[in-house]
Amino acid sequence: MVHPRVLHALSTPLLGHLDPAFLALMNDIQALLRVVFQTKNHFTIAVSGTGSAGMEASIVNIVEPGDAVIIGVNGLFGTRLATIVERCGGKAILVEAPWGQILEPDAIEAALRRSSPVKAVAIVHAETSTGAWQPLEPIANLCRNHDTLFVVDAVTSLGGAPVEVDRLGIDVCYSATQKCLSCPPGLSPFTLSDRALAAIRARRTPCQSWYLDMALIADYWAEGSRAYHHTAPISMLYALREALRLVEEEGLPARFTRHRLNGDALAAGLTELGLSPLPPLEHRLPMLTCVTVPAHIPEAKIRASLLSTYGIEIGGGLGPLKGKVWRIGLMGESSTEAYVLTLLKALEDLFIRDGWLSTPGTALRAAARIYGRKKP
Amino acid sequence: MVHPRVLHALSTPLLGHLDPAFLALMNDIQALLRVVFQTKNHFTIAVSGTGSAGMEASIVNIVEPGDAVIIGVNGLFGTRLATIVERCGGKAILVEAPWGQILEPDAIEAALRRSSPVKAVAIVHAETSTGAWQPLEPIANLCRNHDTLFVVDAVTSLGGAPVEVDRLGIDVCYSATQKCLSCPPGLSPFTLSDRALAAIRARRTPCQSWYLDMALIADYWAEGSRAYHHTAPISMLYALREALRLVEEEGLPARFTRHRLNGDALAAGLTELGLSPLPPLEHRLPMLTCVTVPAHIPEAKIRASLLSTYGIEIGGGLGPLKGKVWRIGLMGESSTEAYVLTLLKALEDLFIRDGWLSTPGTALRAAARIYGRKKP
Repeated sequence: MVHPRVLHALSTPLLGHLDPAFLALMNDIQALLRVVFQTKNHFTIAVSGTGSAGMEASIVNIVEPGDAVIIGVNGLFGTRLATIVERCGGKAILVEAPWGQILEPDAIEAALRRSSPVKAVAIVHAETSTGAWQPLEPIANLCRNHDTLFVVDAVTSLGGAPVEVDRLGIDVCYSATQKCLSCPPGLSPFTLSDRALAAIRARRTPCQSWYLDMALIADYWAEGSRAYHHTAPISMLYALREALRLVEEEGLPARFTRHRLNGDALAAGLTELGLSPLPPLEHRLPMLTCVTVPAHIPEAKIRASLLSTYGIEIGGGLGPLKGKVWRIGLMGESSTEAYVLTLLKALEDLFIRDGWLSTPGTALRAAARIYGRKKP
Repeated sequence: MVHPRVLHALSTPLLGHLDPAFLALMNDIQALLRVVFQTKNHFTIAVSGTGSAGMEASIVNIVEPGDAVIIGVNGLFGTRLATIVERCGGKAILVEAPWGQILEPDAIEAALRRSSPVKAVAIVHAETSTGAWQPLEPIANLCRNHDTLFVVDAVTSLGGAPVEVDRLGIDVCYSATQKCLSCPPGLSPFTLSDRALAAIRARRTPCQSWYLDMALIADYWAEGSRAYHHTAPISMLYALREALRLVEEEGLPARFTRHRLNGDALAAGLTELGLSPLPPLEHRLPMLTCVTVPAHIPEAKIRASLLSTYGIEIGGGLGPLKGKVWRIGLMGESSTEAYVLTLLKALEDLFIRDGWLSTPGTALRAAARIYGRKKP
């Protein structure tokens, strides 16, 4: 869900994209994005495309033909990173883990030693396809020690869990607007460390994408220059500024706590229904709960009932998890106790109807305990 | 300007991008885009990026390393096409004309003979940087005779002048939402002929862009498949559908006539003020009037006064025309008699204030004559 203030901002009458008032809007967005990325990086912008454009931008700007890049693959989005590395002539070195598990730093370190020199290590912070929450700090330290750039996909985590760009030393980080920032899809928040920017400026070959060439885009977003590159998606930028203001008003710590609490309550309730989270307890994402659906439950049919009867949309499995899991997002404005309880109640009803549950209230009571109450 | 119905559509609460109701929206957009592109092309979609993303998509999908591409260069956007061809390893063969002039078919034909085989010829239909309106038919015929793909940039023309994709045999055509379609920027209408699609399917190498890979995007937009590629910019698609409905309600012939009439009235008025259109009479765009500013007029200062005092934004020159021309758009909802007369009146006031004009009403009367009246 998107906050009404964001929908209202979307419908603001347009300014020219080189109007002084619009340039001020760009400055506001940069400052607010630095807050959520927890960074002082001067190069912090919104890419004029969706999160996938941000992913592509992160790779095509850094990787030149022949460069080796280590990719952590434990879900759909790691696989996609590897595809993009290969499409720009890089050598993708895959470090794999089972879907739902995290990547072990030892495996990354072994790959770094084996394949030196390595241009970058790229991993997904919050795997939307599995619900796994990847710890970043050990891998960030390895990158520092091996003088390798660290690329982090924060599409699903930004605004819902800490993405500490400066403290960890992340060099390239991209996200999307429609996850925990609760803005419509269409833009990709993006930040580059000075180290990453120096690597881009030192390229031997031009970036293969003109549209996503950050050396050119830097001049467009730079105050005082604003060299025309492309026409910014003005309405989406109005919306993003408003969404970021809402994040700032709530404050990052409160926002992270809210996501954690609602994610825990949902997982507790689902477990009571026989739906166990796929990732191990300590690596479960707060904003995306991925649970295994027992074989006797026709998962697509239940999802369709949730949408048509209750107006609730949950995700099915992707790739090898197709038909085997549900992926339930509680992101940004949608991370609320009311949504958790509404979904659990709907599932209880459907499960009782179909004879998979006998006692109503089981899941709701488990969730209520997380919220610190005896009754739902 | 954007119609209030489009602003309202932007603020529609969001659907999931795989919700059945959203898939119906995608079908609507495809059908409406086929009307404005005057095509039956099955592959007719909106690219999830601005017009520049559409330009990049048109080239990276067609061109493989070593392919020769003839580019017509008579303004900024031709130059940009050539840059993109080179960034995907193609050989850009430039056919140049002075800024403000059109490209002569003879020059294109000579290049086709000299450089055979040529993968594609790419030209800009409406050069926003110069106001020149390129005739397409002779070049389309040449492409057909030489078995070469024809790529047309219709960023500024689509919805304001005929873009006859099927009748002319254009193979790749892209546009942008914020020009004559009067929708905010952020999407690029895009269509491929079956011939272009076959060329894409027959590539020896994968498209260097994953985000803009039309072979993958075809499966995402295909009814019945909707294979997940990226998350579509939902709010922008709501807006585009509404903008396209407005185009359909007005009808293309009426819309083209309106753009022509207002463009002619503006040019007549400006000429009275000593501001002559840059392109020759028969090649002036209806929606973008580019006039030479005499050396004694401080052009940037006048533009700033128009914006701050009158709330009117006009464009300055780009590239070699910087400081020498004004570019005045009358596109979509902004192509109105009221806007023409308001701008001419504002310029008359400023010119009288600064002593460059003695008789008020000169420009307004010239415009009124075009509208078929004796007095403004």
